[in-house]
Amino acid sequence: MEAKPCSNSLAIKTTHVLPPDTNAFGTLFGGKLMAHIDDIAAIAAVKHARNPVVTASTDSVDFLAPVKVGYSISIEAFVTWTHHTSMEVFAKAVTEDLVTGERKVSATAFMTFVAIDENGKPVPVPSVYPETDLEKMLHENAALRAKRRGERRRHS
Amino acid sequence: MEAKPCSNSLAIKTTHVLPPDTNAFGTLFGGKLMAHIDDIAAIAAVKHARNPVVTASTDSVDFLAPVKVGYSISIEAFVTWTHHTSMEVFAKAVTEDLVTGERKVSATAFMTFVAIDENGKPVPVPSVYPETDLEKMLHENAALRAKRRGERRRHS
Amino acid sequence: MEAKPCSNSLAIKTTHVLPPDTNAFGTLFGGKLMAHIDDIAAIAAVKHARNPVVTASTDSVDFLAPVKVGYSISIEAFVTWTHHTSMEVFAKAVTEDLVTGERKVSATAFMTFVAIDENGKPVPVPSVYPETDLEKMLHENAALRAKRRGERRRHS
Amino acid sequence: MEAKPCSNSLAIKTTHVLPPDTNAFGTLFGGKLMAHIDDIAAIAAVKHARNPVVTASTDSVDFLAPVKVGYSISIEAFVTWTHHTSMEVFAKAVTEDLVTGERKVSATAFMTFVAIDENGKPVPVPSVYPETDLEKMLHENAALRAKRRGERRRHS
Amino acid sequence: MEAKPCSNSLAIKTTHVLPPDTNAFGTLFGGKLMAHIDDIAAIAAVKHARNPVVTASTDSVDFLAPVKVGYSISIEAFVTWTHHTSMEVFAKAVTEDLVTGERKVSATAFMTFVAIDENGKPVPVPSVYPETDLEKMLHENAALRAKRRGERRRHS
Amino acid sequence: MEAKPCSNSLAIKTTHVLPPDTNAFGTLFGGKLMAHIDDIAAIAAVKHARNPVVTASTDSVDFLAPVKVGYSISIEAFVTWTHHTSMEVFAKAVTEDLVTGERKVSATAFMTFVAIDENGKPVPVPSVYPETDLEKMLHENAALRAKRRGERRRHS
Ligand SMILES: CC(C)(COP(=O)(O)OP(=O)(O)OC[C@H]1O[C@@H](n2cnc3c(N)ncnc32)[C@H](O)[C@@H]1OP(=O)(O)O)[C@@H](O)C(=O)NCCC(=O)NCCS
Ligand SMILES: CC(C)(COP(=O)(O)OP(=O)(O)OC[C@H]1O[C@@H](n2cnc3c(N)ncnc32)[C@H](O)[C@@H]1OP(=O)(O)O)[C@@H](O)C(=O)NCCC(=O)NCCS
Ligand SMILES: CC(C)(COP(=O)(O)OP(=O)(O)OC[C@H]1O[C@@H](n2cnc3c(N)ncnc32)[C@H](O)[C@@H]1OP(=O)(O)O)[C@@H](O)C(=O)NCCC(=O)NCCS
Ligand SMILES: CC(C)(COP(=O)(O)OP(=O)(O)OC[C@H]1O[C@@H](n2cnc3c(N)ncnc32)[C@H](O)[C@@H]1OP(=O)(O)O)[C@@H](O)C(=O)NCCC(=O)NCCS
Repeated sequence: MEAKPCSNSLAIKTTHVLPPDTNAFGTLFGGKLMAHIDDIAAIAAVKHARNPVVTASTDSVDFLAPVKVGYSISIEAFVTWTHHTSMEVFAKAVTEDLVTGERKVSATAFMTFVAIDENGKPVPVPSVYPETDLEKMLHENAALRAKRRGERRRHS
Repeated sequence: MEAKPCSNSLAIKTTHVLPPDTNAFGTLFGGKLMAHIDDIAAIAAVKHARNPVVTASTDSVDFLAPVKVGYSISIEAFVTWTHHTSMEVFAKAVTEDLVTGERKVSATAFMTFVAIDENGKPVPVPSVYPETDLEKMLHENAALRAKRRGERRRHS
Repeated sequence: MEAKPCSNSLAIKTTHVLPPDTNAFGTLFGGKLMAHIDDIAAIAAVKHARNPVVTASTDSVDFLAPVKVGYSISIEAFVTWTHHTSMEVFAKAVTEDLVTGERKVSATAFMTFVAIDENGKPVPVPSVYPETDLEKMLHENAALRAKRRGERRRHS
Repeated sequence: MEAKPCSNSLAIKTTHVLPPDTNAFGTLFGGKLMAHIDDIAAIAAVKHARNPVVTASTDSVDFLAPVKVGYSISIEAFVTWTHHTSMEVFAKAVTEDLVTGERKVSATAFMTFVAIDENGKPVPVPSVYPETDLEKMLHENAALRAKRRGERRRHS
Repeated sequence: MEAKPCSNSLAIKTTHVLPPDTNAFGTLFGGKLMAHIDDIAAIAAVKHARNPVVTASTDSVDFLAPVKVGYSISIEAFVTWTHHTSMEVFAKAVTEDLVTGERKVSATAFMTFVAIDENGKPVPVPSVYPETDLEKMLHENAALRAKRRGERRRHS
Repeated sequence: MEAKPCSNSLAIKTTHVLPPDTNAFGTLFGGKLMAHIDDIAAIAAVKHARNPVVTASTDSVDFLAPVKVGYSISIEAFVTWTHHTSMEVFAKAVTEDLVTGERKVSATAFMTFVAIDENGKPVPVPSVYPETDLEKMLHENAALRAKRRGERRRHS
């Protein structure tokens, strides 16, 4: 399998924040943001692997800014690193007050997806190479994050 | 109000096609695609106007290719032209078989949005200027499309 | 296949306008109205064809009046005209302030559906004949609208 | 308040049965059908009362025929009887295999709605009079059903 | 098939009341509560039967207290009684103002489910035995309720 | 503010896994599971604080087992530890093949919620004390997890 650039898997989802996804104060539930992030991150992973995937894990996520009804939320995701059958995807969610134009990072996340066959067995994925500075930085630290995930699983 | 480039309003929405949005043959309902197009086109219009908007009309839309469960659908939208209080937004929906990577244009649409105040009264919007070839082409034909919409309304 | 009257395909959908389908001003998104119209228009088309259908196109639609949360929206749809494998469906959406009883036409639409088999290949549909004045009027102009759709497709 | 005919409140909802509303065998959940019935029955009640309403109770409901994915379900509802602040609504749900045209009654229901003000306090409603045979039959038995509901509440 | 205790089928669903499920006054629609009750009652029935089920009927339900946006609604359901292929499930919905902690019973319901095979044919279920006082009370009256359901069906 | 036991905040959500929440292989999206976990964990946090809350962060989550359409998913959540304005909630999601009765832990999660006033400013919460062995174990390690979260925030 031929290696592919990070940019090949880039996927973007912008959407309105609507009342059903918000709490009594009109701000987005953290879990709904996670669902949007997982949706677009999974698209990035399948674009890289050209194979169905499942979410194996998400690293810790901090919710930095509330997201209000009527704002837009825009999430960019791409594959930063791969091992045999697993891929790390980085996702960044930016919320925008559409009327003032003010934008804030509301969360960043590292998720791991595994390519699987129809029996749920892991299958190999192509490797990925970074091109921009951000991609290079994320790619270089990725092996360390993967190592920590392995330790975490062994200790739990 | 200062004029803004078309690119300033560009908004992109990529999403999975899920079972609830599909018919008995597992292909996306035309109306659900229209709902996705309207969602992202409205975001483009608000980004340009920095003011809430309503959908005034959609020009005719041809559904060119079926969109299947598990595919992604990616819609790009930007403001092509403005008059006093109304804006034309062009949207293009591309569907991708995520496993093979095959992509097809499934629909293009021209929608008109009007900026409104809290009483639903139209309010002025900044003008827009095109930069790329596609933007220029769409901007140039826009006045003609707006004229036809006006005639259409008078005859109905 | 025996010809059927327009009235045979008549389908009606009345529903509440709920918060998730509305924008920051509490009025229905144009795209959500299109999704409701497509849902009921497709039912009308299948009732005529007694065969699954896909949406081929929608003619231009003007959104004439805002639809508020708590109002009802009632859409009537029926087949006005058929060709070989395609059917034109006319749909009219009326919004009602349920408390005052005030009713307004919020949109009318002409959509084209095509009957298909399990491989997505078009299959013939029965012809339709009009009985009421409205049905006759819509049936008579339909060939002209179909001709314009053909021209539209050739020029795009 | 002037009395109104039963027909004044008639409301009809036809909709596709979609995958999210169905169980592992592809048939509609009983609870989802109840939600559709309540939606359209409440519209009928508000059309009669021209006042917001709440559901006070539903009589027992038998689910007579399974409703499959891809079928349509069409529910008709109208006010059959009123007392001071409460109204009885009769609803009948008919499912149709859209491809064969076969139709079956899948449930009938009697629901009671109460008109309320913004503090949730019951307010009077106009009385209703029947015109057709079905309306007359339902209107005549209604007082007996209301009496049984009263007894039921006292014994629980 | 070995008899099982009522407690074996106990299932609990607690969830937020969200804007899409509420009317103009911000209180839950009766039909949405019925949908939640049916969802968890069906889980209780399948846990007892270890076989897919369909909803055969619901006895009358009184809606005792409004359920507001932001409140939680918690429903407990368990099998109270079985016959050959049918099971009676009792469900109790308690609403809680999460900020004050005030709790109210908003509805109780008796539903009947039937275990079916892949052709929709009823199949036998294990019998159930009560252990607590509440279970015993509900189990003892169940045969009478079943008899009344039988009479109700014969008269309609 | 009086201290409360962990058990006071216990909240349980059991629900069916439905087609709209699943991917092409009929297994639940990781993001949808996160949304369910956040919903019930937030209920636990509000029950403890008796005050609205926002999700501040989620620790890393491993998705251990796929969750199939038709299975149930049951999530239990309770407050394990509090500081000034923040609370740690532990949630455990167990999936059950309802027909065989086989159960598997599909994920466990530690989330932090912060009680806020109407301006989004953090407000104090009561402290919590553990009673069972599991509660004690989770309570004792919590300060360490909180310390790591603080370090994580400072380094990013
Ligand atoms: C959570 C939030 C209210 C904290 O506000 P803040 O101004 O950083 O508040 P402070 O620094 O005074 O911290 C308040 C408490 O939150 C805790 N906290 C803040 N960020 C945290 C994080 N990422 N993880 C865990 N705890 C956190 C602090 O430790 C402190 O706890 P303590 O009072 O018990 O000691 C704020 O970051 C916010 O509004 N975030 C968005 C929340 C949201 O909308 N979530 C859903 C997004 S879709
Ligand atoms: C769109 C709307 C605000 C226009 O109001 P109006 O009183 O007709 O306003 P005007 O005649 O002054 O026209 C205002 C602008 O809208 C444009 N416009 C009006 N109807 C239009 C249509 N159907 N298509 C395109 N543009 C239209 C006019 O050309 C004018 O543009 P300009 O100011 O740039 O020259 C009004 O028709 C409305 O509220 N419609 C419902 C919108 C809605 O809720 N959509 C979703 C429905 S589900
Ligand atoms: C329905 C409700 C407003 C009645 O309030 P109340 O204080 O009991 O009012 P009253 O005793 O004065 O009765 C008012 C009317 O309601 C009728 N009523 C009350 N409970 C009823 C029931 N369970 N079934 C049928 N009718 C009922 C009474 O017969 C009376 O009718 P009338 O005025 O026509 O003679 C109240 O019980 C309520 O708010 N329930 C919750 C409604 C709701 O939110 N439903 C959805 C829940 S998810
Ligand atoms: C993810 C899954 C397929 C891994 O299966 P497994 O039998 O553990 O497979 P292996 O041990 O062979 O590991 C396969 C790869 O997954 C990685 N992996 C497994 N668990 C992981 C985790 N929690 N976090 C990150 N990576 C993980 C391994 O490191 C390995 O990567 P590599 O091949 O690139 O070296 C399996 O755990 C699973 O099906 N989980 C549920 C997925 C799901 O349905 N998610 C949504 C739940 S709602």
